[in-house]
Amino acid sequence: MPRPSNPEVRRRLLEAGLDLVHTRGFTASGVKDITDAAGVPKGSFYAYFPSKEALAEAILEHYWTDIETRLLPILDEDGLAQARITRFFHALADDHEAGEFLLGCLIGKMSLELSSSERVRAELLRILDRWDEALTACVRSGQGGSGGVRADLDAAQLASLLIEAWEGAALRGKVTRSRAPYERFEAVTVPALLR
Amino acid sequence: MPRPSNPEVRRRLLEAGLDLVHTRGFTASGVKDITDAAGVPKGSFYAYFPSKEALAEAILEHYWTDIETRLLPILDEDGLAQARITRFFHALADDHEAGEFLLGCLIGKMSLELSSSERVRAELLRILDRWDEALTACVRSGQGGSGGVRADLDAAQLASLLIEAWEGAALRGKVTRSRAPYERFEAVTVPALLR
Repeated sequence: MPRPSNPEVRRRLLEAGLDLVHTRGFTASGVKDITDAAGVPKGSFYAYFPSKEALAEAILEHYWTDIETRLLPILDEDGLAQARITRFFHALADDHEAGEFLLGCLIGKMSLELSSSERVRAELLRILDRWDEALTACVRSGQGGSGGVRADLDAAQLASLLIEAWEGAALRGKVTRSRAPYERFEAVTVPALLR
Repeated sequence: MPRPSNPEVRRRLLEAGLDLVHTRGFTASGVKDITDAAGVPKGSFYAYFPSKEALAEAILEHYWTDIETRLLPILDEDGLAQARITRFFHALADDHEAGEFLLGCLIGKMSLELSSSERVRAELLRILDRWDEALTACVRSGQGGSGGVRADLDAAQLASLLIEAWEGAALRGKVTRSRAPYERFEAVTVPALLR
């Protein structure tokens, strides 16, 4: 069978898949649900993705690429490192609020639902590495001179802790359906860890 | 139909359900999988639980009651508040390590998979409240005199942040299958938030 090459069909499958997996979860989203939502015949799914797991990997990549291109640049803007970090997480929280806190973070969701799949786990590790890396660079830029960030702790360690505390805030935000945990993270955790 | 009253059957359904839901997830665990694992006829499930959602609620309660009775008392032991808090989370991490970091925290898992169910969400809110409460009392006990805990921040807020940062650490621990995020939480986050 020749490989299909309609990028429009692939994009529709990816977006319908992202939407369904984020809303219902991976296991609860059947291939037929996804092809129906994408408006393509069920048979075409496997022409684009060898398995549902491969779609999960592509969905995560798609989700992360959006964050990477749209929000990660905030970390490189002008200003103090702590302010840039706060702005970045604030923008991410705005995304969650736009979904009325019903969705949470897809990276967190897939970490808990699907890290038993080696394929998905490898993609999650790649995303967390990239996220760590971008935050580490920002933290480090604040550690010298009058940057305002504590220099007694490793930048990479602080970056990882910020991501973890934020994922936990998003997790509670999904249960309480409110912005309070995100606000607490910005107001207390970020300064407590960085100063 | 008279209500069944075999507590042994209920207990077996609950434990098999907890095991399956924790390993595979709620959606991926069918009623038949659960009754098979419990060694009871499929029909008996609905005699004990009106729905799978009701089982999810009971599973969460069962999981939390174990933590509450076995580990929460650590927060009331002798010693400085920060040391008690660290010991409590360390013991919780030991549980995760015993499962080779494959399972993570069921409270976190259900928060991301099932908080769209109002019934499960109510149970999650109750558990988070109880957890907040116990940690708040411990944080507060350290805020007076030579207790060593910063008094410029509200004890309840610090308690919530500790839980959130810990849930995020457990989330990454499930992806990396390692204790590193838990160790980072104990070594850096706990002192950074409390001192």
